[in-house]
Amino acid sequence: MDRKTPVGVLGATGMVGQHFVNFLQNHPWFEITWVGASDRSAGKKYSDATNWRLEGSMPATVAGLTVSDCNPGTGAPDLVFSAMDASVATEIERAFAEAGHTVVSNSKNHRMESDVPLLVPEINADHLRLLKAQKERRGWKGQIVTNPNCSTVALTLGLAPLKPFGIKAVLVTTMQAISGAGYPGVPSMDIMGNVIPFIGGEEEKMQVETQKILGSFAGDHIVDLPAAVSAHCNRVAVVDGHTVAVSVTLEQAVTKADLLAAYRNFDALPQQKGLPSAPKPAVLYLDEDNRPQPRRDAMRGNGMTVTVGRLRECPVLGWKFVCMGHNTIRGAAGAAVLNAEMMLEEGLIRR
Amino acid sequence: MDRKTPVGVLGATGMVGQHFVNFLQNHPWFEITWVGASDRSAGKKYSDATNWRLEGSMPATVAGLTVSDCNPGTGAPDLVFSAMDASVATEIERAFAEAGHTVVSNSKNHRMESDVPLLVPEINADHLRLLKAQKERRGWKGQIVTNPNCSTVALTLGLAPLKPFGIKAVLVTTMQAISGAGYPGVPSMDIMGNVIPFIGGEEEKMQVETQKILGSFAGDHIVDLPAAVSAHCNRVAVVDGHTVAVSVTLEQAVTKADLLAAYRNFDALPQQKGLPSAPKPAVLYLDEDNRPQPRRDAMRGNGMTVTVGRLRECPVLGWKFVCMGHNTIRGAAGAAVLNAEMMLEEGLIRR
Amino acid sequence: MDRKTPVGVLGATGMVGQHFVNFLQNHPWFEITWVGASDRSAGKKYSDATNWRLEGSMPATVAGLTVSDCNPGTGAPDLVFSAMDASVATEIERAFAEAGHTVVSNSKNHRMESDVPLLVPEINADHLRLLKAQKERRGWKGQIVTNPNCSTVALTLGLAPLKPFGIKAVLVTTMQAISGAGYPGVPSMDIMGNVIPFIGGEEEKMQVETQKILGSFAGDHIVDLPAAVSAHCNRVAVVDGHTVAVSVTLEQAVTKADLLAAYRNFDALPQQKGLPSAPKPAVLYLDEDNRPQPRRDAMRGNGMTVTVGRLRECPVLGWKFVCMGHNTIRGAAGAAVLNAEMMLEEGLIRR
Amino acid sequence: MDRKTPVGVLGATGMVGQHFVNFLQNHPWFEITWVGASDRSAGKKYSDATNWRLEGSMPATVAGLTVSDCNPGTGAPDLVFSAMDASVATEIERAFAEAGHTVVSNSKNHRMESDVPLLVPEINADHLRLLKAQKERRGWKGQIVTNPNCSTVALTLGLAPLKPFGIKAVLVTTMQAISGAGYPGVPSMDIMGNVIPFIGGEEEKMQVETQKILGSFAGDHIVDLPAAVSAHCNRVAVVDGHTVAVSVTLEQAVTKADLLAAYRNFDALPQQKGLPSAPKPAVLYLDEDNRPQPRRDAMRGNGMTVTVGRLRECPVLGWKFVCMGHNTIRGAAGAAVLNAEMMLEEGLIRR
Repeated sequence: MDRKTPVGVLGATGMVGQHFVNFLQNHPWFEITWVGASDRSAGKKYSDATNWRLEGSMPATVAGLTVSDCNPGTGAPDLVFSAMDASVATEIERAFAEAGHTVVSNSKNHRMESDVPLLVPEINADHLRLLKAQKERRGWKGQIVTNPNCSTVALTLGLAPLKPFGIKAVLVTTMQAISGAGYPGVPSMDIMGNVIPFIGGEEEKMQVETQKILGSFAGDHIVDLPAAVSAHCNRVAVVDGHTVAVSVTLEQAVTKADLLAAYRNFDALPQQKGLPSAPKPAVLYLDEDNRPQPRRDAMRGNGMTVTVGRLRECPVLGWKFVCMGHNTIRGAAGAAVLNAEMMLEEGLIRR
Repeated sequence: MDRKTPVGVLGATGMVGQHFVNFLQNHPWFEITWVGASDRSAGKKYSDATNWRLEGSMPATVAGLTVSDCNPGTGAPDLVFSAMDASVATEIERAFAEAGHTVVSNSKNHRMESDVPLLVPEINADHLRLLKAQKERRGWKGQIVTNPNCSTVALTLGLAPLKPFGIKAVLVTTMQAISGAGYPGVPSMDIMGNVIPFIGGEEEKMQVETQKILGSFAGDHIVDLPAAVSAHCNRVAVVDGHTVAVSVTLEQAVTKADLLAAYRNFDALPQQKGLPSAPKPAVLYLDEDNRPQPRRDAMRGNGMTVTVGRLRECPVLGWKFVCMGHNTIRGAAGAAVLNAEMMLEEGLIRR
Repeated sequence: MDRKTPVGVLGATGMVGQHFVNFLQNHPWFEITWVGASDRSAGKKYSDATNWRLEGSMPATVAGLTVSDCNPGTGAPDLVFSAMDASVATEIERAFAEAGHTVVSNSKNHRMESDVPLLVPEINADHLRLLKAQKERRGWKGQIVTNPNCSTVALTLGLAPLKPFGIKAVLVTTMQAISGAGYPGVPSMDIMGNVIPFIGGEEEKMQVETQKILGSFAGDHIVDLPAAVSAHCNRVAVVDGHTVAVSVTLEQAVTKADLLAAYRNFDALPQQKGLPSAPKPAVLYLDEDNRPQPRRDAMRGNGMTVTVGRLRECPVLGWKFVCMGHNTIRGAAGAAVLNAEMMLEEGLIRR
Repeated sequence: MDRKTPVGVLGATGMVGQHFVNFLQNHPWFEITWVGASDRSAGKKYSDATNWRLEGSMPATVAGLTVSDCNPGTGAPDLVFSAMDASVATEIERAFAEAGHTVVSNSKNHRMESDVPLLVPEINADHLRLLKAQKERRGWKGQIVTNPNCSTVALTLGLAPLKPFGIKAVLVTTMQAISGAGYPGVPSMDIMGNVIPFIGGEEEKMQVETQKILGSFAGDHIVDLPAAVSAHCNRVAVVDGHTVAVSVTLEQAVTKADLLAAYRNFDALPQQKGLPSAPKPAVLYLDEDNRPQPRRDAMRGNGMTVTVGRLRECPVLGWKFVCMGHNTIRGAAGAAVLNAEMMLEEGLIRR
């Protein structure tokens, strides 16, 4: 690939937008050439419009870009990543898709629409086949692909190696990092030395998104995985990395050795294709009895590997384990970038 | 009660022992007159033998006591609380019981023996009737009564109001405070900004202790509650207060209103008797959607009230909720003191 | 005192206001009968207008009060505590004073005015004599008294016992708790596992307030302490309690024993008069080499005692030590209440 | 450099040793070929002898090495890094130096000996000229070079650009990360939501080491910088990165612009020589009013850059600012590696 594919970021000045800017620096295939944000920021230099909140300094290559407003027809490249706030994402993403852009979105707005892929490319790359129906039904020149909610990514990758054994029921409790709430996000008075046993809308998202991601492509829609999913979502005093305690019922009678082998042998399309952001392995089983841990394991595979551990029998549902993933990388910006890489590889995006 | 009942504390210089000393200051019924610890401390003043690690200063009334070694026959009063480390509790507690003492123990060692009450007086005060069999079988002049593991207390009190509806399965994930691990306990390098998804032996304890506590008295033993119990135990960056996310299957078809009413109307013997450490209420249901929280709710009822919230349907098991209790008070020293109060009230301890 | 003195709280629904409500519950002299807040809250019940953010539940006696707007003439009692935000405190406090109320304020707005006492009653109770000049100059029927910034209280009480030796220079570095920033205050993304070496306006306040508090009454104004004061202010991941590392130059040649004796013998008017909120002692020197610590010592004296430790020679300025005080109690609500008690005792407030 | 220089690590299984192993992976000049530890570990594979506590997994290249005991004559290469515990470092390091090894040590034991360089190569590379006297006086074939205490590195690099203006007095307060205390190090019960205003021996080390590092080479010893240095050392709830609030008196009358220019123009030998671990810049001044911050800035320059900010006038000592450095990288393993690079560059170590 001689020339990098130019990409834009919708909502580039916000927290998720900053994660996109950060994750895409030095990307081998993509190069940010356009940043969009609210009218208030439009016309300013990115460095002036953005209060950089991540570690270190803003990447110099983006700092000098002029912020556009979020309308198609402002010179945005074909491929745009969306880090839009949910309050405005529905209309703006649709407008870009209508105007012929490929919108690879981290926003929740379109995830559950029947003809929109909710993509974790290690799990359901075939769901990209929905795009044909999406274009036909909507008459769009462009398209929208979404990635799941941050906690759902960790969960579904933790479950994916077990899918061949038949997943019948899933009960999870999350312990989620503060970075998942953006900025200013969670007040320190609420979370320091504390647990908040509630994250608005999160449990519902984990439940339905998991069923769709693990579901089956059926032409113009996805048939949900026929499994009950229940989530308890909690915020804990962790900076990055969502930990998920999972209990699961499998259809098949299996041994622990069967399941460990399934984790160890889990292989998937993005790894086979050698996509630049595809971690090797996608799912890493750790043998130590006190792992995974967010502070020590979230950055494995540059934040793209989901770690799993403590597989054991569950007296109630059959099996239980712990999985953990970096919420702003594997659960947001990195997820979307990997989706775009998969689409480029599959010929679904123009270079 | 004119004169206070003299009490001793076995293992008084350790972390749990310090919690006993703290909890018992100004107690209306009990007065610490004797403190026992290892040979290394014996003969020293309590203030010299103890590195006080709790808030504020050591209670002056105990500071001047001389530490005895942990043998009966050193002047210990009839009633002794045990804060012994598990490595030595089995023999020492037995020796005191044999010698005629009532041992009210926080240690795990004797909890699961068939003739030893594992007492949460709001739930199973009738299990004290085991003591008759205990004395007969063992030929002891004294007796041993135990309280549960810290996380189990919060769980069982959170479940107790639902027991009339028939508990068939319980799946919990705990988020446990660092104070549960004693001192030095959890290294800060392990837990700061982190979650540790493992606490040695904890899951097993929660599973079997819950079945015994909620079980039925059957003469010389307890018939376990016939319910599968599964626990995921995690350590989080909280100082005091164990949070438990609970999913439960009930035998009866009930409405949310039925369950809320059960929480609101839950009443129990210690409260009816007005025991000094019995909180009112024992179990407090909080309506806010983000409660209970350990930093804000653990000290309710002087640390003895267990708080519950977020009752809702669980797509997998039927119902789910969150409960939380102060682990070193309701889950340790306060639990044992309330047990002793119950026994005194019932005439099972000499004044 | 048969009947309690009725008091009002200006800004009662905010974070500082909640601290006043909390601190005044069961106060032996004062009873909250009136709560004032913004127009948005006026007319509502306090419990409806207030998102209670402190531990436990809102005191029932205040929960049922109807919130007034912050104008005199709405039935406010003679004595009002002000927890007003700085953006509105200047005008409102002045209006109440003009209308004849005694305003005991925690706000910064009037602190540095020449005829307004900046009171720490253990240090400068004689500054209350400014009130005569204040009333004359302003033609007010009422009066305004202020307490210092939260970090300044800890510092000045830590310095007060040394004042007789002549304070010539003071250089401090603070490590301040998040509760000092109110709610939502410091985002968790900023402070978790972090230090923020800046608190807007804080260094300037510590410098000038310290000079005024330790200064001398001179009829209609205070002559500042003629000592240079320099502050480095930092936010750290602590919930309650501001720690201050202090280096100080004294005029007199003294020994460590002299200074320790000064701490041990420090006695002050509020303690002598037995004011209900006057802690005994006001300043507590701790001998352990690793104290004071905010989590373990902030609540001493019900949060009103300032703790000091680690007195030793400073190679640069002469002496150095650490002091620490509870910022929302001794540094805010408790400070103001103690001020009012002092004024009542001195006959400066009508019962 | 075709072949990498083989290096050994003394004390390789401990926490500091692990930091060496981590920092040296993929080093362009050095390759670990030998690891030494206590007798208990000797003979085992490094992966079996070591409980890896850093992020991610142990580098595979070192995992398979067999641990030797810490005696010369066990095949250790010429160059050994020492991560020895202070309790044993004196004898062992001396034995290796006597036997002809170059010992580049992070231990405190030999730092203050008159003929041992206490090296920060950006500041005092000329102190390496002490080695001639060291060898002569001691009759060693080898040599010992040390790096400072972790907090001293951040301080002296923060001061170095100001040295040309004449440093007369330095008063600092540190806020130090828990990783500085090793493993298990600081109990979480001590530091969570807390500040500990004491670190054993740290204040003394900062005071004398700073004077030596900033002092002048005088043939066979260093003439200390003639400046009083005073330190208040505190532990705070931060994982990595020591923050230092500094007040300083300079001999020359300067403007803020002069000092900012000094920071901006600071250039040093390691950067000029392009040493692999020399960060560019060595000292980075940040203009934002709330920086540097450990969580956001400690990893700049791969953890080797010291960041500075908030330069302003100090009413007591003249100037004040904040500096911050990564304590286990710039303050330990990385410091020693940079020292070795400097020595290799200067021809003081055999390849």
